[in-house]
Amino acid sequence: MSYSCVGYMVVSRKEKFYSLQCSQCGILQDHSKGVSLCVDCKAPPDIFYSKPASLDFSQFRDVRLANYFPGLWSMWDVLPLHDPSNIVSLGEGGTPCIPLKNIGNKLGLKDLWAKLEYLNPTGSFKDRGTTVMLSAAKEFGLTRLVEDSSGNAGSSFASYASRGQLDASVFIPEHAPNAKRLQISFYGADVYPTSGTRDDVAQSAVDYAAENGLYYSSHNISPYFIEGTKTVAYELMLWSGNRPIDHMIFPVGNGSLIIGCWKGFKEVKESRNYDDAQPVTFPKLHAVQSHACNPIVSCWRGTQWDVSQVSNGIAGGIMVGTPPRGFQVLQVLEDTSGSAVSVSDGDIGTWQKLLAEEEGLFVEPTSAAAFAGLELLVADRTISKSDLTVVPITGFGLKDTKNLDVG
Amino acid sequence: MSYSCVGYMVVSRKEKFYSLQCSQCGILQDHSKGVSLCVDCKAPPDIFYSKPASLDFSQFRDVRLANYFPGLWSMWDVLPLHDPSNIVSLGEGGTPCIPLKNIGNKLGLKDLWAKLEYLNPTGSFKDRGTTVMLSAAKEFGLTRLVEDSSGNAGSSFASYASRGQLDASVFIPEHAPNAKRLQISFYGADVYPTSGTRDDVAQSAVDYAAENGLYYSSHNISPYFIEGTKTVAYELMLWSGNRPIDHMIFPVGNGSLIIGCWKGFKEVKESRNYDDAQPVTFPKLHAVQSHACNPIVSCWRGTQWDVSQVSNGIAGGIMVGTPPRGFQVLQVLEDTSGSAVSVSDGDIGTWQKLLAEEEGLFVEPTSAAAFAGLELLVADRTISKSDLTVVPITGFGLKDTKNLDVG
Repeated sequence: MSYSCVGYMVVSRKEKFYSLQCSQCGILQDHSKGVSLCVDCKAPPDIFYSKPASLDFSQFRDVRLANYFPGLWSMWDVLPLHDPSNIVSLGEGGTPCIPLKNIGNKLGLKDLWAKLEYLNPTGSFKDRGTTVMLSAAKEFGLTRLVEDSSGNAGSSFASYASRGQLDASVFIPEHAPNAKRLQISFYGADVYPTSGTRDDVAQSAVDYAAENGLYYSSHNISPYFIEGTKTVAYELMLWSGNRPIDHMIFPVGNGSLIIGCWKGFKEVKESRNYDDAQPVTFPKLHAVQSHACNPIVSCWRGTQWDVSQVSNGIAGGIMVGTPPRGFQVLQVLEDTSGSAVSVSDGDIGTWQKLLAEEEGLFVEPTSAAAFAGLELLVADRTISKSDLTVVPITGFGLKDTKNLDVG
Repeated sequence: MSYSCVGYMVVSRKEKFYSLQCSQCGILQDHSKGVSLCVDCKAPPDIFYSKPASLDFSQFRDVRLANYFPGLWSMWDVLPLHDPSNIVSLGEGGTPCIPLKNIGNKLGLKDLWAKLEYLNPTGSFKDRGTTVMLSAAKEFGLTRLVEDSSGNAGSSFASYASRGQLDASVFIPEHAPNAKRLQISFYGADVYPTSGTRDDVAQSAVDYAAENGLYYSSHNISPYFIEGTKTVAYELMLWSGNRPIDHMIFPVGNGSLIIGCWKGFKEVKESRNYDDAQPVTFPKLHAVQSHACNPIVSCWRGTQWDVSQVSNGIAGGIMVGTPPRGFQVLQVLEDTSGSAVSVSDGDIGTWQKLLAEEEGLFVEPTSAAAFAGLELLVADRTISKSDLTVVPITGFGLKDTKNLDVG
């Protein structure tokens, strides 16, 4: 397999073998007809490689490959695609990681960094998952796809569908921000605003796909989506070099980013290219949710939770009452000795403004939630002064402006 | 001079000597008190290096430096700053360049690419100029700055001012899009919506700075801004390798991007690191303006132009009636055997939608104007089928949504 590039030939470097298995019981699944939960345990599938995925870090500097597929797809060897001609890419990945000295000073942290995931092509981290999910769909020969999203994943899905010349139908909550709805329909996707809870929206998408013989390609349960988000971990391993990252803080709705990151770190750990002579600590991964919707925090802390407790919160990206991969998020927290905290809309708004005024970062409320959570973790001494802490900024501020008081 | 990085020490590699001279008559200027036009010929200043700026391309792969200042500032050796501790950065630069096969097919072009400049930290290419301009201001010890902008440069200015803990006042046209105004004030800058033409807005900023003893730091005339935008050319030289770029198409208002790119290409050409054994063609640079405001196209074509001809156009970023560096844009077109074309609002809107539906790119009208211009240049055979053509996408679609018909 080879494909042409600007003046070069790049050769696919090895054969990849992987299978889809239920993330709980391990039963093999067929993904070619649509994404579905395990018949027995109702858990979403994961991708398992028959030999540990491995990455030669020197390939990041392979200018030839990086020029044609910069960023994420330069990690070709650890991604579940067989034919590069199926790649549907907009140049996602390779986002900057910048120091936050002003905010760090406020919190008493000496080594606080932000990974600017909003600098992906549609303005959110979702593009990492979408590029892998839709490239896989293309490899299966699918042309008509259905998705549901609170907004960012829908924009990303519609954009990449257009890029890959696929038909897209996107179900969104009827109260999704205007900017997100506008962006989705501008890409040419069919948009279906749907009433009810976030879970009702997902069910409508599933039903619509079933009724019309279409492929339900949900970022919430697709294992390919997780394969995309895991690349953040690979990039951070390259970025941090010999200095281990101590903590990462994630806003968590469905949890695709925190789950993906942990899969990435685990793969690096298991990789034959990883130098065992230099023991490296992997970061503790922490989940932040909103008081308005915190099933994972409740479960982690052993407090009562019922989906009827969901209220309206300003952080639209994490208003997920029944996350299909929630049990995996809890596993990540346990595996990494992480934690879960819940924050108020008031604190989210305060941090959104602080990030803009202190660091020049205009982020959406969901992204600000992670910093409100960080403040709690510093206060209870989970994170200490000299710890190297990285917070992914998941979405651009202009994506969701309806709650802004701009004075 | 050395500074610390994540676990590394990076040493500033050489002394840099440069001066500010009028871009027309060459008279030396002092920039430390404010950006001003030449007393004699009213032209803005440029930066001249006492020896040709040069860049060892291998340093792009210097992971240590790139980790702390990814992207633009990894080109430290060719930027006019003496002390890295003055850098005000948000991780700008290093944007992807992606193939546009679907649009290319429509136009009959086999090798069309987009450089995604909207994936800079505030959503537009302006960040490249702003990071250098405000870092220089910091090196001069300035703390209170005044700027004027149709929107994107203002957002960028406000963001970087906040990041660098500088006081910012931004004058904007009273009809600037809401999203841009909102973004500027959210960063904590003082915003002054001003009536009249774009030129009236600039004059108000100049007057305000003079009356209050503040530093007028205008992206339209600052030579530091141009030093930032020139880095696009360096990145493209690295990207294209041995294959020369034939054409680049720019939406032109003040022209800071087209002027900067040509300065970058010229510096590479003059650099001692450039391999003379391999002759390389530099691209033809083309300027696109709107029928609603086309002083440069008019001058290039020898048709009559008066600032009173400016009408309302949807491409807000290029509505500049009297660009202070207009004569330099004309020089670039001549030096590179480029051209200048003017396009209608209707065609701009059509291309904005085409980019979204065919390539998954949601861009602002100003960026779409370049593609409307590209279509004309293909039609008149200025650009032919196999030419390698690169179009910078200057601003994100969510920056300016007031003219969108989203069906």
